[in-house]
Amino acid sequence: MTHKIDFYHAPNSRSGSTLALLEELGADYALHLVNFKRGEQRQSAYRAINPMCKVPAILHDGVLVTEQPAVFMYLADLYAEAGLTPAIGDPLRGAYLRWLVFYGSCFEPALVDRSLKRDPAPPSTSPYGTWEDVMNTLQTQLAKGPYLIGDRFTAADVLWGGALHWATMFKLVPETPEFRAYIERVIARPAMQRAAAKDAEFLTQLAA
Amino acid sequence: MTHKIDFYHAPNSRSGSTLALLEELGADYALHLVNFKRGEQRQSAYRAINPMCKVPAILHDGVLVTEQPAVFMYLADLYAEAGLTPAIGDPLRGAYLRWLVFYGSCFEPALVDRSLKRDPAPPSTSPYGTWEDVMNTLQTQLAKGPYLIGDRFTAADVLWGGALHWATMFKLVPETPEFRAYIERVIARPAMQRAAAKDAEFLTQLAA
Repeated sequence: MTHKIDFYHAPNSRSGSTLALLEELGADYALHLVNFKRGEQRQSAYRAINPMCKVPAILHDGVLVTEQPAVFMYLADLYAEAGLTPAIGDPLRGAYLRWLVFYGSCFEPALVDRSLKRDPAPPSTSPYGTWEDVMNTLQTQLAKGPYLIGDRFTAADVLWGGALHWATMFKLVPETPEFRAYIERVIARPAMQRAAAKDAEFLTQLAA
Repeated sequence: MTHKIDFYHAPNSRSGSTLALLEELGADYALHLVNFKRGEQRQSAYRAINPMCKVPAILHDGVLVTEQPAVFMYLADLYAEAGLTPAIGDPLRGAYLRWLVFYGSCFEPALVDRSLKRDPAPPSTSPYGTWEDVMNTLQTQLAKGPYLIGDRFTAADVLWGGALHWATMFKLVPETPEFRAYIERVIARPAMQRAAAKDAEFLTQLAA
């Protein structure tokens, strides 16, 4: 099996987390930059890759994988030897899946409403309950630490560390001591630093 | 390894899909009914299980798994012998993960906005682009059929068949011929029928 992955990425966007994961995994990938400033994500060439016009998207063995939590699960299992995912049968597998899905199903919708200053949907409809439910659940989990599912650093931390870093920077999430300590712990990792440097370079390439 | 699963379920709610999956898998589970009419989901006993006050939630080997797509991945892997999940290494694994995550990250947020008659967030923020993006992407995928990832029926169909059944019934999703045919194909399955009958019985139990 070849591991070569086609990775569709826009600098300075959500797909930066996947870039960081690829660095953490030491993955072999071909980079395809999508120029958001020129609106390439909504043009037909990219629509043919991902009709949702979003990044990240990866192609591997002819199969499209989109939606960041799915991309994370897929890549961490593909590079299982990097040790960033509990294997099937490991009791922590369920917690790991829960927190990856929670990111897209609860945290992002809550963040969207928050950033638009909209109320959440009524309790029976809202996929995330209330903003306080999301923050409290996340803080309680991280207080156990040092990582999201406990002692072990996983791909879920690459996603959450990056997302909380960004969300606290934009004042969408309060910078509590627990969040701050967790963010620092994750972004200090050499692969995370390397990804940030690469992303800055990709942004410059597109601006040139 | 014991397979015994504690399953927290509210009749006539989103967790009906997990009930259907447990039936499809022939799983060994202990049922715990959560009475939504009495607001039990927001009371301390249930908060101690799932602080997000949502169903489904499962406990297995002492670990909490929440968020329906994560619960699905976890259970389908646990009962791999039922054949409802492509294994790691199967090229279809990525497509399977993509569509399970898509449900919570794109479809549900789109449906919430739709049901509240709210506009989606601006393109750079919206996790699902536009309502049309979601419908077109889903229809295009199902047109390949007969199941979501092709010839093979998977746990993703249990989730999507049930969700589209419900969403077309409430006129939130248009009942196109493709959707109708797909829904029929899924809900006709004996395990799906069995789950629906059980759920009706659970509802009666709580009302008694």
